[in-house]
Amino acid sequence: MNTHDTPAQDLGSPSRRSVVTATGASVLAAGLAAATAAPATAWSPATAPVTAPAAAPPGTDPRAYATVARAIAVYDGHDEPLVPRYLRIVENGLPARPAKATKRVLVVGAGPAGLLAADLLKRAGHDVVVIEANGNRVGGRIKTFRKGGHENGAQPFADPLQYAEAGAMRLPESHPLLMALIEKCALPRQEFHLVDVEVGNPSEKADRTWIHVNGVHERRADYEKDPTRINDTFGVTGDHRTRTAAAILADALEPARRLVRDKEGTALVEGWAEILRRYGHWSMYRYLTEVAGLDVRTVDLVGTIQNLTSRLHLSFMHSFLSAALIDPRTRFWELKGGTAILADALYEPVKGQVRLDRRAVRIERRGGKVRVHTVSESVPTGEAGVTEVFEGDEAIVTVPFSGLRHVTFDPPLSYGKRRAVTELHYDAATKVLLEFSRRWWEFTEAEWKEALDSVEDGLYERYRAGRVGHAEYLGAHRSVKDLGVTVPDGLKEYFSVFRPGAGRDPEAAHVRGGGAVGDNANRFMYFEHATPVEGSAGGIMLASYSWADDALKWDAFADEERYLRALAGVQAVFGRRCEVFFTNRCRTQSWMRDPYAYGEASVLFPGQHTELFPDVPTSEGPLHFAGCHTSIKPAWIEGALESAVRTALKVHTG
Amino acid sequence: MNTHDTPAQDLGSPSRRSVVTATGASVLAAGLAAATAAPATAWSPATAPVTAPAAAPPGTDPRAYATVARAIAVYDGHDEPLVPRYLRIVENGLPARPAKATKRVLVVGAGPAGLLAADLLKRAGHDVVVIEANGNRVGGRIKTFRKGGHENGAQPFADPLQYAEAGAMRLPESHPLLMALIEKCALPRQEFHLVDVEVGNPSEKADRTWIHVNGVHERRADYEKDPTRINDTFGVTGDHRTRTAAAILADALEPARRLVRDKEGTALVEGWAEILRRYGHWSMYRYLTEVAGLDVRTVDLVGTIQNLTSRLHLSFMHSFLSAALIDPRTRFWELKGGTAILADALYEPVKGQVRLDRRAVRIERRGGKVRVHTVSESVPTGEAGVTEVFEGDEAIVTVPFSGLRHVTFDPPLSYGKRRAVTELHYDAATKVLLEFSRRWWEFTEAEWKEALDSVEDGLYERYRAGRVGHAEYLGAHRSVKDLGVTVPDGLKEYFSVFRPGAGRDPEAAHVRGGGAVGDNANRFMYFEHATPVEGSAGGIMLASYSWADDALKWDAFADEERYLRALAGVQAVFGRRCEVFFTNRCRTQSWMRDPYAYGEASVLFPGQHTELFPDVPTSEGPLHFAGCHTSIKPAWIEGALESAVRTALKVHTG
Repeated sequence: MNTHDTPAQDLGSPSRRSVVTATGASVLAAGLAAATAAPATAWSPATAPVTAPAAAPPGTDPRAYATVARAIAVYDGHDEPLVPRYLRIVENGLPARPAKATKRVLVVGAGPAGLLAADLLKRAGHDVVVIEANGNRVGGRIKTFRKGGHENGAQPFADPLQYAEAGAMRLPESHPLLMALIEKCALPRQEFHLVDVEVGNPSEKADRTWIHVNGVHERRADYEKDPTRINDTFGVTGDHRTRTAAAILADALEPARRLVRDKEGTALVEGWAEILRRYGHWSMYRYLTEVAGLDVRTVDLVGTIQNLTSRLHLSFMHSFLSAALIDPRTRFWELKGGTAILADALYEPVKGQVRLDRRAVRIERRGGKVRVHTVSESVPTGEAGVTEVFEGDEAIVTVPFSGLRHVTFDPPLSYGKRRAVTELHYDAATKVLLEFSRRWWEFTEAEWKEALDSVEDGLYERYRAGRVGHAEYLGAHRSVKDLGVTVPDGLKEYFSVFRPGAGRDPEAAHVRGGGAVGDNANRFMYFEHATPVEGSAGGIMLASYSWADDALKWDAFADEERYLRALAGVQAVFGRRCEVFFTNRCRTQSWMRDPYAYGEASVLFPGQHTELFPDVPTSEGPLHFAGCHTSIKPAWIEGALESAVRTALKVHTG
Repeated sequence: MNTHDTPAQDLGSPSRRSVVTATGASVLAAGLAAATAAPATAWSPATAPVTAPAAAPPGTDPRAYATVARAIAVYDGHDEPLVPRYLRIVENGLPARPAKATKRVLVVGAGPAGLLAADLLKRAGHDVVVIEANGNRVGGRIKTFRKGGHENGAQPFADPLQYAEAGAMRLPESHPLLMALIEKCALPRQEFHLVDVEVGNPSEKADRTWIHVNGVHERRADYEKDPTRINDTFGVTGDHRTRTAAAILADALEPARRLVRDKEGTALVEGWAEILRRYGHWSMYRYLTEVAGLDVRTVDLVGTIQNLTSRLHLSFMHSFLSAALIDPRTRFWELKGGTAILADALYEPVKGQVRLDRRAVRIERRGGKVRVHTVSESVPTGEAGVTEVFEGDEAIVTVPFSGLRHVTFDPPLSYGKRRAVTELHYDAATKVLLEFSRRWWEFTEAEWKEALDSVEDGLYERYRAGRVGHAEYLGAHRSVKDLGVTVPDGLKEYFSVFRPGAGRDPEAAHVRGGGAVGDNANRFMYFEHATPVEGSAGGIMLASYSWADDALKWDAFADEERYLRALAGVQAVFGRRCEVFFTNRCRTQSWMRDPYAYGEASVLFPGQHTELFPDVPTSEGPLHFAGCHTSIKPAWIEGALESAVRTALKVHTG
């Protein structure tokens, strides 16, 4: 028997539980309660089977419920909202303190959490270094494909004016820190339409894009009028047959929602704690079948249309919270020029403090100092990669826990933190972005006719009749050539194999913004930039936005193998004729394959909220932990900002 | 509103359920019942909490239980074992039938299922074409890194005699079709030791490799003698404190195991059906906490040591069946020269029928013919990829369902099959293989001293005392240079950052075969080839074998970024001194990132066995479905072989 000479006490007490300092503001909690108000068709207790909540797994720390509940509500330990305090700090900086107490602070990771924390600490007089693994950009999961962006001068699309989001794209108005920051930085914004609007009148919802499932095409508005045509293709029977997937889901979530609706303060914390006690260790699949009593066909329907299928096995809590936020009733914004202009604004004041191309590999605590050992991204094939060590008094570590799995801590982190690093689930998310030389989704049939017949006389009718059997017109519209693109004949022939088979094209979508849902591999499609980019007649389509297993299937393909497949999936839903505007300039982002992100975000497994989360944001001596995974808003910038303020405050006042 | 002109009836009846033809043999079922016998410490009903089994999700077809139960047992619809019949076919070919009834059969995929099916059909006189996406090899998830193998002449390791498995590596003796095939092809084999054996006496188990968790090093045998030292680091209390993780797990599974133990025929089918009814829609996490009543700390312990953690959220059924198979009591074999020699043997008789570099993209059924549209793997960057269409009377599709998500079927598959293609979960599995110029794990301390002191006088003592602070001796042993390798100084400096910190090295492992378990990112480690490769003093270590989230974290790194990290993980468990034998020639395999496999295997989510599996192996007109995912032995060659016989028989006699 043999033991490393690390003293056992360095490994931290095996008593995993510790009281987490809850973070944030009741504004959000109230927003959530409001956003989750019952839908038009009220939930009826008669339709909900009564199931006794299963007991929590043995050994669950009962204090965890309140801890996590406060993190959801963004309350402190006295059930007071944290957001007003955090807002003051975002707007006016950290509170003043004696000048002598400045510290040297290492911030690991230059995403929004790291950049904001660095800025706050720098302004308060601390000596800050931000260590970023990426060699060509900051921003983390804020990443915009744009001219002059991170691709070292490369122009991502044929049209230099075009840009599109690899990461964060929709900014909820209900996120107060984010809204304050955008305001403070005076960043230009415009509304992001989750639901498509009228081309001529963006304040009017059109709701006209397609649901394309089980071989049936139907406009969303038509589905809402009469859900039976689509519901029948899933074999949904009984009361659910005549209700929309959204309404069925809203009803299904009602037993949980009513536990928090219209509550605040301690009552709100108790409401969330009760939800956690009942369903915190449940998957959404278990909730939908056991509490809501949905049959497997109805689960298929709701999962397909409401984007739950790929995450059914994940925590009920995550999808429950997401369903409240990603909702037609939430107002979203986007930034003109791309979300990366927010990262630019956060980067500007700390540019001199940021060291790019330095990946943290080992974090040591010795003699009252923190040392972060880094390597450059140069792959060590014999040529030496650069190594560099940074030393500070304290460190704010914003690396996703999935990434910390490959960082050595010496001495090791506490038991609870180690389990969280090992087990916290990170989900996959993948986007495929296609450029078109025209925003064809805005076209009327008359505009289609004009555009197609300008390529070749009668082409409009040939497409309508399904008589364009091969992809010979791929990129054939003059506007594609005007962008300097020529699609080779070989590619057209190759693409013909992927292209959907013969059949009449559906009618013009004739919408702005919003998107479509299908049951093919593309799943969710969005039209970027509801307000078109000035000076450009073209547009980018988020041709596929998928999560979890749906995303991993795209991830098996190399980037360039995804584009034609994604185009074919778009055609299956919107018709083949859009191919004439295809510029063959595409981008894709796999967050799970990204060696800086290791996943889209921490979308937890059943039970991980109460079992692991309490140990996620806690500090360990001079090490503080930030990033959206330390909040209950994984994948949202707001969660990153909350954590930046929380940790900067802790370093500053600690 | 608009609809594609695909007739609704082409979409298949929304009635998802159909009776699956169960496949296989009771030999396995009996084997499982035997292998799962209660451990030394018998399970006590007193320790098992009684939990009423939760109802199945509403809408579950009650016939599904028997269907899946028969697939597990490999029984036919009359509860008769299929394996004896299948064995006769593997050994003697398909039954004779009139010569005129030959068919042209397209087999999609040249893994073991496709190759065996093609061989059987060809020998029976049918006209067969096998369509394989991969351009440089057959074998599917049988893939050996070896000289002269698929890497187009490249030699994977510094020693040309060495080889190692990217995929299937351990062949259970309890898999009768596989054993018969190996026998028939007269393939040389040797025992694969799941548990390490004595170097001088392979029939004696050594059980001496390391468990390295929570900073504690302990030999397996010592842990078995007294589990408290390790169990205490997890904070396990009560009765479980003094029991091994294996024994706790065996007890925990007992309530399910006793439902099938010593049963056969209809009683066995009823036993499996009962397990499915009770736990088929459960995750392993739910089972362990709700049925076995394990507290979260004990789940941490069992999950870490018994390799369950990363799959806790997946189907109870999968881990339950795996726990019975991957067990020290199971005898495993490996093939001398690599598992790929089995693929070679299956390939040989049908070589003329196999078309490499043809990826199926679209499968059409029209006018009584099946047409498979394919593209070559040439990435379409302007240069045309080759496209080719194959036509046949029937087709056997062996592509994993994760891959079928990107294949268009025209007309579409039935509702049930489409849901299975969309939802069937495929898990990640990743291997990192490192080459060493000596099998240092077999060394005694005396051998270590001789080897290290031959590099530099006193080096043995310096390593023992933890006084080799940097990686200056990486690849420094003469045997590395003898293989023609020189490790550059830059790499040594770079590696020093990853290398575990100071501390005494543990004692010599001094074992052959087997492996170690740790809680670092490497997780499970195995020594390849218990019987060393003749003529080579070196060896390959499977330095990391991980599943699910553990694997996805490796997958975010490019291949070449994994090797030094994996070596550092090996050193954390076995000590730093092994670095002197590191040849810097490594290989890695991410099955989830593999564009031919799209995952390791179909490791289902809770509920998918009864909800989806019945529709997986069913034929749709002239389309038949084979591959390990159509059996209840995902990831095992045996499951692929069962499916090959089942579908070949169906084509032949249909």
